Amino acid sequence: MKKIINDPENFVDEVMDGIQRAYGNRIRFLDNDDRIIVRADAVKPGKVGIVTGGGSGHLPVFLGYVGQGMLDGCAVGNVFASPSAQKMASMIKACDHGSGVLCLYGNYGGDILNFDLACEMVELDDIRTETVRVADDIASAPVENKDKRRGVAGMVYAFKVAGAAAERGDDLETVASKARKALAATRTMGVAISPCIVPQVGKPTFSIADDEIEIGMGIHGEPGIEVRKMMTADEIAELILNRIMTEIPLAKGDEVSVMINGLGATPLEELLIVFRAVHKELEKRGVSVFMPHVGEFATSMEMAGLSITLIKLDEELKTLLKVPAITPFYTNLNK
Amino acid sequence: MKKIINDPENFVDEVMDGIQRAYGNRIRFLDNDDRIIVRADAVKPGKVGIVTGGGSGHLPVFLGYVGQGMLDGCAVGNVFASPSAQKMASMIKACDHGSGVLCLYGNYGGDILNFDLACEMVELDDIRTETVRVADDIASAPVENKDKRRGVAGMVYAFKVAGAAAERGDDLETVASKARKALAATRTMGVAISPCIVPQVGKPTFSIADDEIEIGMGIHGEPGIEVRKMMTADEIAELILNRIMTEIPLAKGDEVSVMINGLGATPLEELLIVFRAVHKELEKRGVSVFMPHVGEFATSMEMAGLSITLIKLDEELKTLLKVPAITPFYTNLNK
Repeated sequence: MKKIINDPENFVDEVMDGIQRAYGNRIRFLDNDDRIIVRADAVKPGKVGIVTGGGSGHLPVFLGYVGQGMLDGCAVGNVFASPSAQKMASMIKACDHGSGVLCLYGNYGGDILNFDLACEMVELDDIRTETVRVADDIASAPVENKDKRRGVAGMVYAFKVAGAAAERGDDLETVASKARKALAATRTMGVAISPCIVPQVGKPTFSIADDEIEIGMGIHGEPGIEVRKMMTADEIAELILNRIMTEIPLAKGDEVSVMINGLGATPLEELLIVFRAVHKELEKRGVSVFMPHVGEFATSMEMAGLSITLIKLDEELKTLLKVPAITPFYTNLNK
Repeated sequence: MKKIINDPENFVDEVMDGIQRAYGNRIRFLDNDDRIIVRADAVKPGKVGIVTGGGSGHLPVFLGYVGQGMLDGCAVGNVFASPSAQKMASMIKACDHGSGVLCLYGNYGGDILNFDLACEMVELDDIRTETVRVADDIASAPVENKDKRRGVAGMVYAFKVAGAAAERGDDLETVASKARKALAATRTMGVAISPCIVPQVGKPTFSIADDEIEIGMGIHGEPGIEVRKMMTADEIAELILNRIMTEIPLAKGDEVSVMINGLGATPLEELLIVFRAVHKELEKRGVSVFMPHVGEFATSMEMAGLSITLIKLDEELKTLLKVPAITPFYTNLNK
């Protein structure tokens, strides 16, 4: 497998430089640190800040969601590696508009350690923080250990809901509670059919046979639940949907949003075929789909495969999803 | 290589059904024909219609650009195969809002034959048409035969410019002339590092060694100019940019828009690294970049690789690029 890159050592620096060159009118580096991005536009004074962070290699996660109606800031580390607590603390400070900051990020060891430390650091500056960790990947731990689950594409719904709550002026505790509410109703599971390559490592993160698919694969190539013979799009949709519905029961009249997320190398045509299968299955049960998301939202570089995320909606979550969001890689105008 | 599909025979039908299920509030099938998509919203009476068409397998080209500020309709065929003249004629009729219809499509034999026939058919109904063919791929024929060149990602700029002209009320001849003006200033060239698989064929469209890159590859896997040993992102950017600049000379003070288009399996991170290289090179020459486009705009299913498109801008083209466009797969708010 080949990569279109320069020196692997410069991979993240060059990606960040590319982002700044492409979207410099909308986002900026904080204090010229090319691992911390904040909004370039003026943010309403008193708006609750929302920040995230994590390893590089998942675009549009996380950087692509900094902007109106979503995040105020994002710190990234090397590929699949957490940024430092110091960088997180600088970002949190910069994103406090007087009403505190929500740290909303994926449930990974390094990120937890560093965000916890960063929150302690900014407390000395009298900045209030709340923490909500995304743990939507049902394949990563059984339900009785759901606090151990990884955060994957479902975080985009949490960014959207929390971002909308902050935009309308909710206070810190409320913004955090809306993020928790969204996540309580959100589940994700993925499949992979080819690995990715970490540039500095230079070889695939795992291997899989030409006629096999890995069920429940993580977005860093963490092993899934099982390896099966290659399945059809309909079979994949059915398997994941059934698994999600054991935790999010759905009945006639329910409303959900569905995200079919490509992991990096999967054609949009295939994502649409899977969306069709999920939609048909839900239709059969009398469940309607609101604001579907089909595309690449949380990737793993050149990994082929996809994840399916389902969020069960009530009127409040629908209202928050509908608030416009305009960021470099995500524009949602509810049209 | 594996595909996430069902029966290959149903590939296009299921993609189309998926699109309709995902975006049915914004686009609709014409007369329940699942190969013809038109806008679902009300179009200003008297607006010039703009239609396109071609083979499937290139999403978001072409269907993804039907919507406000871009196209009125799109007809597609099987993977990499032209839709019929009859379908094109039905679409042209449906997209005539009283002021005629511009047929704006890629310069491929089947599409030309069928669109020409369709235009003759609708003439019997007194519908006026103009034809503009996109032929932006400089690798596909030398400059002295530029009418033979293929149309690739540059067509998105033509859709955008013509769509904006139609939106502001320009007449048919003027809309066509703006599309021609945009295309005269647009050039594209691509590279591929892995092939794609046509579902009904089931095997790769071409083969390429693990340490090689094909320069000038077409989006259907048409052979390029040469096969080289794998290059760095900077070398690819330099090669393509230099080649484009032999036809679009650039000097200090000039303004361009740049599109870095992933062919389907190339990570966004890599596209940004290439954008960075192009941007740096232009910066060195005093050329500024307006409204960059980095992402997937015209793909070839799971092909890995990218194309670089450059359009040289004047005030009028900038004004037209800035007009908002809101379609299922392309939202441009100039923010």
